[in-house]
Amino acid sequence: MKTQLRHIGETKAIQRWIKLLPSRPDVLIGPGDDAAVVKLPGGPFDLVLKSDPVIEHVHFTSSDIPELIGHKAAGRVLSDMAAMGASPCWLLVNTSAPPRTPVARIDGVLRGLCRLASRFGAAVVGGDLSSGPVLAVNVFAAGLVPHRRPLTRAGARPGDLILVTGRLGASLSSGRHLKFTPRIHEGLFLRDWATSAIDISDGLATDLRHIIDASRVGARISAANIPVSPSAKDAHGGRSPLEHALCDGEDFELLFTIPCNRERAFTKAWKKRFRTPCTCIGRITPERGAIDYLDRNGRTIRVAGGFEHFLRRSRR
Amino acid sequence: MKTQLRHIGETKAIQRWIKLLPSRPDVLIGPGDDAAVVKLPGGPFDLVLKSDPVIEHVHFTSSDIPELIGHKAAGRVLSDMAAMGASPCWLLVNTSAPPRTPVARIDGVLRGLCRLASRFGAAVVGGDLSSGPVLAVNVFAAGLVPHRRPLTRAGARPGDLILVTGRLGASLSSGRHLKFTPRIHEGLFLRDWATSAIDISDGLATDLRHIIDASRVGARISAANIPVSPSAKDAHGGRSPLEHALCDGEDFELLFTIPCNRERAFTKAWKKRFRTPCTCIGRITPERGAIDYLDRNGRTIRVAGGFEHFLRRSRR
Repeated sequence: MKTQLRHIGETKAIQRWIKLLPSRPDVLIGPGDDAAVVKLPGGPFDLVLKSDPVIEHVHFTSSDIPELIGHKAAGRVLSDMAAMGASPCWLLVNTSAPPRTPVARIDGVLRGLCRLASRFGAAVVGGDLSSGPVLAVNVFAAGLVPHRRPLTRAGARPGDLILVTGRLGASLSSGRHLKFTPRIHEGLFLRDWATSAIDISDGLATDLRHIIDASRVGARISAANIPVSPSAKDAHGGRSPLEHALCDGEDFELLFTIPCNRERAFTKAWKKRFRTPCTCIGRITPERGAIDYLDRNGRTIRVAGGFEHFLRRSRR
Repeated sequence: MKTQLRHIGETKAIQRWIKLLPSRPDVLIGPGDDAAVVKLPGGPFDLVLKSDPVIEHVHFTSSDIPELIGHKAAGRVLSDMAAMGASPCWLLVNTSAPPRTPVARIDGVLRGLCRLASRFGAAVVGGDLSSGPVLAVNVFAAGLVPHRRPLTRAGARPGDLILVTGRLGASLSSGRHLKFTPRIHEGLFLRDWATSAIDISDGLATDLRHIIDASRVGARISAANIPVSPSAKDAHGGRSPLEHALCDGEDFELLFTIPCNRERAFTKAWKKRFRTPCTCIGRITPERGAIDYLDRNGRTIRVAGGFEHFLRRSRR
């Protein structure tokens, strides 16, 4: 039988295809980070490029409120801009839907999308409308970052502290995945502090792995310090609140590292600037590839992976 | 009953939504042309942005060769870059497909897409892979054009000649819609000659209407001069070859105007540079909104509109 997507999963499929993709000398960060960064000819800025879809039955349900579907569609790419420390500037929106879709439903989707874009000063400059089997919204964002100043997954160093914004877990079951605020302002602020950053879309466990792999380091996490959302504490389904916080995904918070000698100054500056919670959950270690989750007593906890398209769930 | 997309059609739906979209002062050309153009801070270039989907059962069939599906996916946005006179630089690709899709099928799609992108010097810098009900590929392109030098739909003036590249009609039935060459080199060349340009995606009749509306002029077309493709001459289905050439769409040729006093110089320069056929099919008139198609004897011919998503077909 021919190998199918469900046999290899999203991560392996992407690894397979990344090698095929043509590049150019002006590509500073290609596939593999939260967004791509390219050098613009002349001028003091690099261009940050990202695209993400929301598809009915995959990223939202048929009964979700249209405004929130649009909010999530814009929020996903804006969250990636935040993780790169970029200012989002211009969006394009490809919408496809069955011919029998009520016009009012698309009105709502676009209203939600435009409201969030406006809030962060981004324009919607074009896109496409076509028929398709389900409602799907593909959003493309272009943003700017001062030349060679983007945040990336690759800069964490042994000793750095690991921090996370907001509270994690049960984003899907609580509906928070449709209402989150992309951490744009926080991302711009972090350009002056963070050594690495990523947005949490696949779950803390998986996204921390991305920072560890890209930075060629390890991590030690104090599980008790992980900020668990109230909805994760109430969630059912046989998983502990901590497991929800580590593995659920779609939190769209920022996970980042800062040098340990800047902790006090950082905390002071953050609190002055933001109400968004920010929690230190661990430390970068030199043991390449090793991530240890420790309980209050310093004992290691086993942790499964996060969400992956095409597979049912979990990888280590 | 609630109004549905199929009741109002693509064009009216887009007109409805364009008003909602937030803008910014740096947007030079927003929704409504072949692509958006924005001013980059510093530097000698404007940024050109465009996104287009190809969706199974809408833009291609399940039996189409994967490489050609990828070719078309890249070709659609590259054709829009050509119509703006832009150099395509960076692409993002969102692919969604059912979990049972053979990996080899996606391999083929990406191979076809990357091959065409490479041919015109464009890098593929990122994107997304997720599950979805059918194979769908959304491609986003960012390109560069010297500041304030993009070709647009809006610059045609009375007296200008109307020209078209290649041969038109029966692109879908002949399979040409999967194999066309986007007219990138021609578009770059036309920056020094054309007063307006568009790529023919919805059919010559509809796309000429877009130039006429944007430029606030009229047109007189010599129907006998329209370059009809050999496949349109062989096509069945009760339409004349001329009707196929005017209304079929998906030709991805360039339709453009040049000042009439530059005709000789233009023809000489074009022939020196390109083998691509280029045919003068009429002239811009001052009668705003009026398009007359004339036969050999100067008599007016009635012409239907081109393809429109959600509607079955045709508008005047």
